[in-house]
Amino acid sequence: MGNYHFANRAKSARGHKALPPGTLNMCGGLAFGSTMPDISREATEAAQSFRTESLQYSGVLGLNDLRDEIAAYVASDGIVCTRDEIMVVNGAKHGIDLACRVFLEPGDQVVVTAPTYITAIAIFRSHEASFLTVEQDGDGMLTDDLEHKLREMEARGERLPKLLYDVPDFHNPSGVTLSAERRHKLVELAKRFGFVIVEDDPYRRIRFEGADVPTIKSFDDAGVVISVGTSSKIVAPGLRLGWTIADPALIARMADQKADGGTSAFTQRILVQLFRGNRVACHIDELKQTMGAHREAMLGALARFLPAARIRRPHGGYFVWVELPEGIDSEVLAAAALRRGVGVHSGTLCYPEEPRRNFLRVCYSFVSPEQIVHGIAQLGKAYDELRSA
Amino acid sequence: MGNYHFANRAKSARGHKALPPGTLNMCGGLAFGSTMPDISREATEAAQSFRTESLQYSGVLGLNDLRDEIAAYVASDGIVCTRDEIMVVNGAKHGIDLACRVFLEPGDQVVVTAPTYITAIAIFRSHEASFLTVEQDGDGMLTDDLEHKLREMEARGERLPKLLYDVPDFHNPSGVTLSAERRHKLVELAKRFGFVIVEDDPYRRIRFEGADVPTIKSFDDAGVVISVGTSSKIVAPGLRLGWTIADPALIARMADQKADGGTSAFTQRILVQLFRGNRVACHIDELKQTMGAHREAMLGALARFLPAARIRRPHGGYFVWVELPEGIDSEVLAAAALRRGVGVHSGTLCYPEEPRRNFLRVCYSFVSPEQIVHGIAQLGKAYDELRSA
Repeated sequence: MGNYHFANRAKSARGHKALPPGTLNMCGGLAFGSTMPDISREATEAAQSFRTESLQYSGVLGLNDLRDEIAAYVASDGIVCTRDEIMVVNGAKHGIDLACRVFLEPGDQVVVTAPTYITAIAIFRSHEASFLTVEQDGDGMLTDDLEHKLREMEARGERLPKLLYDVPDFHNPSGVTLSAERRHKLVELAKRFGFVIVEDDPYRRIRFEGADVPTIKSFDDAGVVISVGTSSKIVAPGLRLGWTIADPALIARMADQKADGGTSAFTQRILVQLFRGNRVACHIDELKQTMGAHREAMLGALARFLPAARIRRPHGGYFVWVELPEGIDSEVLAAAALRRGVGVHSGTLCYPEEPRRNFLRVCYSFVSPEQIVHGIAQLGKAYDELRSA
Repeated sequence: MGNYHFANRAKSARGHKALPPGTLNMCGGLAFGSTMPDISREATEAAQSFRTESLQYSGVLGLNDLRDEIAAYVASDGIVCTRDEIMVVNGAKHGIDLACRVFLEPGDQVVVTAPTYITAIAIFRSHEASFLTVEQDGDGMLTDDLEHKLREMEARGERLPKLLYDVPDFHNPSGVTLSAERRHKLVELAKRFGFVIVEDDPYRRIRFEGADVPTIKSFDDAGVVISVGTSSKIVAPGLRLGWTIADPALIARMADQKADGGTSAFTQRILVQLFRGNRVACHIDELKQTMGAHREAMLGALARFLPAARIRRPHGGYFVWVELPEGIDSEVLAAAALRRGVGVHSGTLCYPEEPRRNFLRVCYSFVSPEQIVHGIAQLGKAYDELRSA
């Protein structure tokens, strides 16, 4: 091994702890096996009818046909756009990373909720960002608190944040949905204080109850929102296809940073064919049924086996944010659950700075209702042991 | 449009000039349509037999099966490695970018040949790198010159380069192949002066004549070489699959920077099946035949229509580096050719710093022999007009 001179961002290795084989995985937002669609027809079309397109480099912005399908898909989210405002990326995380590359210098601030999405924290850290954290209630990020903090920073002459990141629908990990009023307010704050909003919205279509709230992007009258979408939660993660929707000036800058020879034309063509065959919409209906049943199993199991926990019932998405009594250390509990063969995330992973220590993120997407009941029963036993110790 | 506060790396937009429709494209190293393989069988296998793997997230390092196939594939290049030294990436460019993320701070130096690969320059620029350029002769990079420069920098107490980038086989754009002696020397220099070599080797298997030269990685006894490979030139660019091979400590650092949810498991599985069915090796044989014929057409057309040009016959790869008489401005000539419907790259694009102005890069991969003859005839007319003007 050489004597490497790493850049600051790579000085410490993060490490990738895989779960031990056989562990019941309620950590990651993976796709549930039996709801994965059979895409062999679309894959064959891509390989045969579209061979010279699908096997070639695609332009950096993505296939025109796919960008047109995406424009049509997001229209029902109140996002009025053309293909010129859309760039295809290799999943939503790639879109977040490109937004960072366009805006962040080391030390620049990003506004996030605390807690927030684990991988987004890692991406912001890889850009050596610092964080301005804002709490949430049942209506999402406390935008009045944010405004207060920004006004204070401005009054003190401090550098203001460059980006704001949020998962407005069925927040990861908290499950809450940001109210329409606060979405509108965020856009006003972005205009007033000069930051750009990254709206990461993977779970929007996985709504089990209640009415859609307009996207943040739909309030954007000034080009201050980058909407990040993905096919991972509506078709399959394995395609690695997401998109960013933003002002063409921002798309051009992000495209400059996307020096990757374009996203796979092959998987892009498959997704076009899935859209055209109305298979995406059908698959979403199926997913909502299945994930809704998983959620019920999860909420029932938590009530039964972990009655001391406080839960806010999520109206969609993949996660339940479990608040444990004060004094319980979620890292100790997660480790105890792992010894019982059950993987859950300690909530401490979801805080970019000082974490609250008594939360767990449990994910119901990858495991069956039966496995959920078994897993939460084990988690409950681990909890009871911890309490009595 | 907002009043955006871009990071330094994104302050100026690069712009993506697409060729006008109908242009004969001898610019980019695209795949030739009629040699693209029919991968519908492998795609169907990925979609059906491997559904719950191919549609799921893959680990950040890639599928074990693919990493094992890659290890077997590179063994004939003298690269002895296991899957633990391999990370799958979204094409070679992605591997170059990850190496930059691990090593480069703004202002750090990268050693490159002048000329070098256009997109690599863009990637290094996006990391705000500076360049230490080294000339080439028929045996590739002048490593004695490099050593001399490094010794002088060291004597002056200057910061030494962090990375060295080269395309050792059938260099892009110059077409030359780095000699074995110089490859060995590069590894010695890397050890002596503390830099890491990024060996970008997309064209190695597309050899028309002569014997293979050992890879730089095969001389690496100290973990100082990151070997970057791709399926783009041996199967198809549309899969967007490449790999990096390096010391596990480096792979771990690059994996930390690859916050993309893993590369597409779907296209990875397709490539595994292509390897297992011996289809990659067969396809390479076909490509060598076809690209060899394209090269002959190109060399013949250049001799006939552009006799004033000096050419070094490439023994493989996709490019011919065309030296024009002094005083010819390649940008003016490329623009004149474009008006005649023919796209070629001005060689000035291939220099990170002060360019030599009398070179063109012509690519024979994407166009048929007939188109090559037609295109070079038009280029010759543009040249003759320029001379007589």
